[in-house]
Amino acid sequence: MSVFLGIDPGTALTGWGVVEGDGVNVRLVAYGVIRTPAKQPLPERLLTIYREMQDLLETYRPDRAAVEQVFFRKNVSTALSVGHARGVVLLTLAQAGIPIAEFKPTEVKQAITGYGGADKRQMQEMVRLLLGMEEIPRPDDAADALAIAICCHNHIGARWA
Amino acid sequence: MSVFLGIDPGTALTGWGVVEGDGVNVRLVAYGVIRTPAKQPLPERLLTIYREMQDLLETYRPDRAAVEQVFFRKNVSTALSVGHARGVVLLTLAQAGIPIAEFKPTEVKQAITGYGGADKRQMQEMVRLLLGMEEIPRPDDAADALAIAICCHNHIGARWA
Repeated sequence: MSVFLGIDPGTALTGWGVVEGDGVNVRLVAYGVIRTPAKQPLPERLLTIYREMQDLLETYRPDRAAVEQVFFRKNVSTALSVGHARGVVLLTLAQAGIPIAEFKPTEVKQAITGYGGADKRQMQEMVRLLLGMEEIPRPDDAADALAIAICCHNHIGARWA
Repeated sequence: MSVFLGIDPGTALTGWGVVEGDGVNVRLVAYGVIRTPAKQPLPERLLTIYREMQDLLETYRPDRAAVEQVFFRKNVSTALSVGHARGVVLLTLAQAGIPIAEFKPTEVKQAITGYGGADKRQMQEMVRLLLGMEEIPRPDDAADALAIAICCHNHIGARWA
C-alpha cells in the first residue's frame, strides 16, 4: 500500500486529498483545504500554507505527491498568485524528499472518468464513486485534489519527476 | 545603521543586494545572484533558492527586505515561473520575521534617479554612483536588486507591510 497526496495550490485556498492504494484498489484517507485570510499580507499567507503543508506531510507521510500542470490562457495576475502558493507547496514536498508528479488536466480527467473532456460535475461524481463517499467532496478545491491523488495512484510507477 | 536586502526573484536567477545606511547615507554591503540549473526539476530549484535565501539572511541579518511589485502585461508562463520563486523568497523572509516592503517599478526608478521613467542603463549607472562602485554591478538581476535595496533604504520607516 502506498499513500498519495494530491494538491491544488492557491493563495486563498489550497485543496489537498490523500488516498492509499496498491495500484489497483484505491481508498480515501482524508481531504481538506488550507485557507488563508485575504486580509493577511501575502508572506504570512504563504507561511500558513508552508506550515499546514508540513503538518499534512507529517500526519499522512505520503509516498508520492502530485499537482496539475497549470495553463492560464489570459489571467496573468492569477498565474502570479497561483505561482506563489505553488512554489511554496513544491518547496515543502522537495524538503520532505517526496517524489512529485505533474499531470495535465486532461490526464487527470482521463484517469478519473476515462474521458479527457469530462466536466467538473462528472469528475466530482466519479471521485465520490471511486472513493465510496456518500457525498461529493467539498469544496471544489478538495475534490480536485482528490482527483489528482487518484490519478497519481493510477499512474503508479510512471512519470515520476 | 540598518541593513536592507533587495531581491529580484526568478526561478533561474534570483538577484540580491544588501546595503546599509541611516536613511541619509547608504553603503554597499554585498550583492549577487542565486542561480539554479535549467535541467533540474522545479522543486529542486525552489529548494536551492530557499536554502541560499536562508544563508543570505543568516550572513547579512537584514532589518528590512524589499521586492518589486510585479506587473506582467502578456507573458502568463513567465508570471507563473516568477511566482514560484517569489513565493519561496517571501516565505523565507516571513519565516525569519523580516518586514517586507513592495515597491512599484516606477517608485524604484524615482528613488534611484529622481525620474520614474529612467531606463535600465541610467538606473545601473546611478546604482554604481550611489554605492561608489567602480563598475556597474553584474548581472542585471543583481543591479536591479541593489536598486530595490537602495529604494527601501530611502523609504525607511514608510510603507511597511
